[in-house]
Amino acid sequence: MIAVLKRGVTPEQIRQLVDWLKSMALDVHVSEGRDLTVLGLIGDTSRIDKELLESMEIVGSVKRVSDPIRQANRKEPATNSIIEIGNIRLGGGYFALIAGPCSVESEDQIIEVARAVQKSGAEILRGGAFKPRTSPYAFQGLGAEGIRLLLKAKEATGMPIITELMNIKDLPLFEEIDVIQIGARNMQNFDLLKEVGRLRKPILLKRGLASTLQELLMSAEYIMSEGNEQVILCERGIRTYEPYTRNTLDLSAVPALHELSHLPVVVDPSHATGKISLIPSMAVAATAAGADGVMVEVHNDPAHALCDGAQSLTPAQFDELSRKIFRIREAIQ
Amino acid sequence: MIAVLKRGVTPEQIRQLVDWLKSMALDVHVSEGRDLTVLGLIGDTSRIDKELLESMEIVGSVKRVSDPIRQANRKEPATNSIIEIGNIRLGGGYFALIAGPCSVESEDQIIEVARAVQKSGAEILRGGAFKPRTSPYAFQGLGAEGIRLLLKAKEATGMPIITELMNIKDLPLFEEIDVIQIGARNMQNFDLLKEVGRLRKPILLKRGLASTLQELLMSAEYIMSEGNEQVILCERGIRTYEPYTRNTLDLSAVPALHELSHLPVVVDPSHATGKISLIPSMAVAATAAGADGVMVEVHNDPAHALCDGAQSLTPAQFDELSRKIFRIREAIQ
Amino acid sequence: MIAVLKRGVTPEQIRQLVDWLKSMALDVHVSEGRDLTVLGLIGDTSRIDKELLESMEIVGSVKRVSDPIRQANRKEPATNSIIEIGNIRLGGGYFALIAGPCSVESEDQIIEVARAVQKSGAEILRGGAFKPRTSPYAFQGLGAEGIRLLLKAKEATGMPIITELMNIKDLPLFEEIDVIQIGARNMQNFDLLKEVGRLRKPILLKRGLASTLQELLMSAEYIMSEGNEQVILCERGIRTYEPYTRNTLDLSAVPALHELSHLPVVVDPSHATGKISLIPSMAVAATAAGADGVMVEVHNDPAHALCDGAQSLTPAQFDELSRKIFRIREAIQ
Amino acid sequence: MIAVLKRGVTPEQIRQLVDWLKSMALDVHVSEGRDLTVLGLIGDTSRIDKELLESMEIVGSVKRVSDPIRQANRKEPATNSIIEIGNIRLGGGYFALIAGPCSVESEDQIIEVARAVQKSGAEILRGGAFKPRTSPYAFQGLGAEGIRLLLKAKEATGMPIITELMNIKDLPLFEEIDVIQIGARNMQNFDLLKEVGRLRKPILLKRGLASTLQELLMSAEYIMSEGNEQVILCERGIRTYEPYTRNTLDLSAVPALHELSHLPVVVDPSHATGKISLIPSMAVAATAAGADGVMVEVHNDPAHALCDGAQSLTPAQFDELSRKIFRIREAIQ
Repeated sequence: MIAVLKRGVTPEQIRQLVDWLKSMALDVHVSEGRDLTVLGLIGDTSRIDKELLESMEIVGSVKRVSDPIRQANRKEPATNSIIEIGNIRLGGGYFALIAGPCSVESEDQIIEVARAVQKSGAEILRGGAFKPRTSPYAFQGLGAEGIRLLLKAKEATGMPIITELMNIKDLPLFEEIDVIQIGARNMQNFDLLKEVGRLRKPILLKRGLASTLQELLMSAEYIMSEGNEQVILCERGIRTYEPYTRNTLDLSAVPALHELSHLPVVVDPSHATGKISLIPSMAVAATAAGADGVMVEVHNDPAHALCDGAQSLTPAQFDELSRKIFRIREAIQ
Repeated sequence: MIAVLKRGVTPEQIRQLVDWLKSMALDVHVSEGRDLTVLGLIGDTSRIDKELLESMEIVGSVKRVSDPIRQANRKEPATNSIIEIGNIRLGGGYFALIAGPCSVESEDQIIEVARAVQKSGAEILRGGAFKPRTSPYAFQGLGAEGIRLLLKAKEATGMPIITELMNIKDLPLFEEIDVIQIGARNMQNFDLLKEVGRLRKPILLKRGLASTLQELLMSAEYIMSEGNEQVILCERGIRTYEPYTRNTLDLSAVPALHELSHLPVVVDPSHATGKISLIPSMAVAATAAGADGVMVEVHNDPAHALCDGAQSLTPAQFDELSRKIFRIREAIQ
Repeated sequence: MIAVLKRGVTPEQIRQLVDWLKSMALDVHVSEGRDLTVLGLIGDTSRIDKELLESMEIVGSVKRVSDPIRQANRKEPATNSIIEIGNIRLGGGYFALIAGPCSVESEDQIIEVARAVQKSGAEILRGGAFKPRTSPYAFQGLGAEGIRLLLKAKEATGMPIITELMNIKDLPLFEEIDVIQIGARNMQNFDLLKEVGRLRKPILLKRGLASTLQELLMSAEYIMSEGNEQVILCERGIRTYEPYTRNTLDLSAVPALHELSHLPVVVDPSHATGKISLIPSMAVAATAAGADGVMVEVHNDPAHALCDGAQSLTPAQFDELSRKIFRIREAIQ
Repeated sequence: MIAVLKRGVTPEQIRQLVDWLKSMALDVHVSEGRDLTVLGLIGDTSRIDKELLESMEIVGSVKRVSDPIRQANRKEPATNSIIEIGNIRLGGGYFALIAGPCSVESEDQIIEVARAVQKSGAEILRGGAFKPRTSPYAFQGLGAEGIRLLLKAKEATGMPIITELMNIKDLPLFEEIDVIQIGARNMQNFDLLKEVGRLRKPILLKRGLASTLQELLMSAEYIMSEGNEQVILCERGIRTYEPYTRNTLDLSAVPALHELSHLPVVVDPSHATGKISLIPSMAVAATAAGADGVMVEVHNDPAHALCDGAQSLTPAQFDELSRKIFRIREAIQ
């Protein structure tokens, strides 16, 4: 940690600050220049409140030097985590297409959609059983029954399953689920993060609506610090002032997260845009940006979907999109 | 729900859409004008996905007419909820000052701060026992021990206590706590909301960093729909592009929430600004804007606070602020 | 324009509102349903203040039906404007790569960069002569001399030139410039828009840092309403809370603007991200999203660039990027 | 300027960087600690591109130490600029109420409103003659005729006038105008700023919709660097994701700007909220926050206002508000 002192501080003031810092068990390296004095703080600076230090009268600015992210951050330039999901691999050069309906509605529906997206090249099936809804009066998902139907679809197609967990007490239902999704609204539900950190199965962690990349990585760190290293990051749009799209898909998060972390990055253009007409372009752009996977909502009958029908592609639309995505994958090799 | 159709739709297209809507058990009132056709949908329109309807080729725009908020919304112009907290009242003309440290650190600290803020006119003591922290490596609060110390301070001063609940499983510890705080990061942790909805004690619900007023009210509705009507709304700053303050305090939320809802509104300027120098002005402005309470961080030794010291006032600063707040209360009567 | 009245309005109240609306020379079509009354306003509703109408006691909500955009909006599904820039075409299936330095610095520099990017496939040369800078003390560009050097580079390479105009009084200097850029900060400098609307040469209009797509189109409309139909829209990143990138590139603006308008859309990933390491991925993603052009900063010696060196690619980096972009163009055909 | 180098840099790498920095005519002070090396750069560092330096492989982070703001920034703790407007003073303890219609519409209207607001305690009359409008088809103000009518009202009441200038060429019309307003959309129209910097009359500079406080001050600096020191800063709401208010009024800007600058700060709650019902609370809160002036839209007949009627108070509403504002002024002394 580096503290730059204001001009005109007296030696006495410096001495007092250094004493106080030493009382917090830190080594202090003082560097006095012609115009300014810089303190280098060495030791466990995580105990220091950066903003408190900055608020002191004689301190101009404070900068953390050591990265607060220990496990999620990139260490070696070329090594990327590869997450194994059944027979599928994701990350480190492996790309996977994830598709399925917003909500599981019936056995027929989920199996029909699963077969269709599998035929078009999707390797992982997504579907919501527990649905976070803004209103307590909206359809909240089929719950345990939804999980049961997803596992039926897994049995029928062999596709691994990804679905959202909202409540720690539902965890026993997720035993055979392949990837647990932590939704955007729970990205900083720290107790939930710690709980899934004790599992040994892949976690897909969605970026919160107003979360920075740094905060997303700190939340991944919550999971990893409990021992679960299988974290997949997911960009799904952030909240901005623009009303035309539901959220603003931040595709620069893909190369930025790859720069900061070794974890794979998946993009969800369906929730981000909320508009069928924009999803294919954004799925293709995400692939071109280097995403390790793309997750798309597909419904066999979007007009009758119980939730988010407006952002679900038909199987035929998905098939066309999927061809384009694979062409892009080739183009960027 | 009102759907305005695009120009040039054919009678056959209208008929198909009306049939589909009727198949969802809705009454449809068709109003054809010279230039445009308007459909009025009557019945349980909460089953209709507004965005799906809008995405249909012949539909220009859709507008919900009925308010999705049933219990939190304002019904009578002049009736405001009054929340009773011990002997204290908050809302409907009653104003309360809430103060205390970010984190409970020791018995001496919390009792000393409690006595000081009480002397300056604070009626409710706040203090963090369970702390939501971005990093898993940061100080996470004293937990159960912190709750115990808060109750010691309650015993010593008679002040009712407000503290944050993060995890349903900790609920038994909160038996004697007077007001349970749901933090900004958990505003859409719907299972937690439902759980505290089953209690019969006041809940202080903080607005999420990127939550709209409508979403804040829907989250209050989650609590109220389970039977707990004692909800206090709290504005604590929203995330914007401005880097000078930690968040941007949205004081227009105070009259806006009063317009939309009968629930009391409290403002927390400490977390919003993150800067000691800005807190007094914002506390005073919040009072002038009509807030039903103001919640301020106070620490007997901010320089050694274990968390957020940079945003804690000293007891002396709080005393000065408190006088100003009470003068403002008189001025706006 | 559609106004939905609140429940419980009296016939007398409706009559008064209708009379007032008729006094503004509008036809009013009243449609009374069981639960609600809808007014359809026909005529020149641009004279009505939508927010004023909404603020009236008996009015629930108001919705504009007619598009306030008359010339920039999409009319026929398949017809897109093609802008001719010298021998180059942009839009309607024609794609152009635009490259060059942030600032023109010397004759050698601009000609060297022009030759390099031309060899890599760039067809239009960009370079700043008048530079909008946040600080009055920062380098403001070479001005008239910069324009002269750009025209030298045009002479040497045959590439058409694009450069920014900030002040109407500089217009005479731009006679031989092929495309005039209106910068993000001037997107709502309406007098400047009207002035370039009187020209008959292509205008590249950059989206403001906090402008909606609707506002961008309304600004294009300012230019077109004066008779200049040659407008190119440019997405260059919007301001959000995320600090890792300078701005957040909103790539969904590409398909969204194509949906709303017939005008071509160019993406500038250099200013959006502000980081060399992210520019190639974003340029490639923009191409995949369907952009009609990509504009990239290239400098022969980024380390000594007088402005924005941190976001300039070297000619070698641009060459590699350019190959990737052309492969993507093929993949999305 | 301070550059912190990454761990593990070699002496040779440091030497190269230092040589390069010296070639830019800077003194470099090298401070090597056990774990890290810090470079202090002394001289005209405004020539250094901070982001370029940060993008270099061996550089961890860079921090500017000297303030880029030279004239607008606070120098002495207690000295605040006082702006003289006719006989009125604003800033440094002097508070002024500014009121008037959004647009000047007729001689009767502007004189009637002026007399009414003057009676209620307003000291400066505002009114729009040149109106920046998003759409080229909306009412653009009466222009020169509007200026003439404003001067009639000045003659009739003795109130000094504030009105917006959009185009340098209109400047001759503003000779007798007392305060020139630069609107939010023109806050970074740098040529316009320089032009009004050459005048010797007060300028009210509105914060842009997505401008940081630092950028607002840099724009004030543009005016001051040309010799005009009479700048009044104006907070008028920033753009956020919240749809309930037109913009989000950032009242923390008031104490923040007072902390950073000696210039007076005025708040405009009318444009910020866009809703009559929220304006009084926000005007009162702005006063409590320490604003040096409050600017409110008042119209004698809001229902027939040609623009922004929804945000105009009636003279009676303004009279009530004005009493409250003056009570608050007393309470915060």
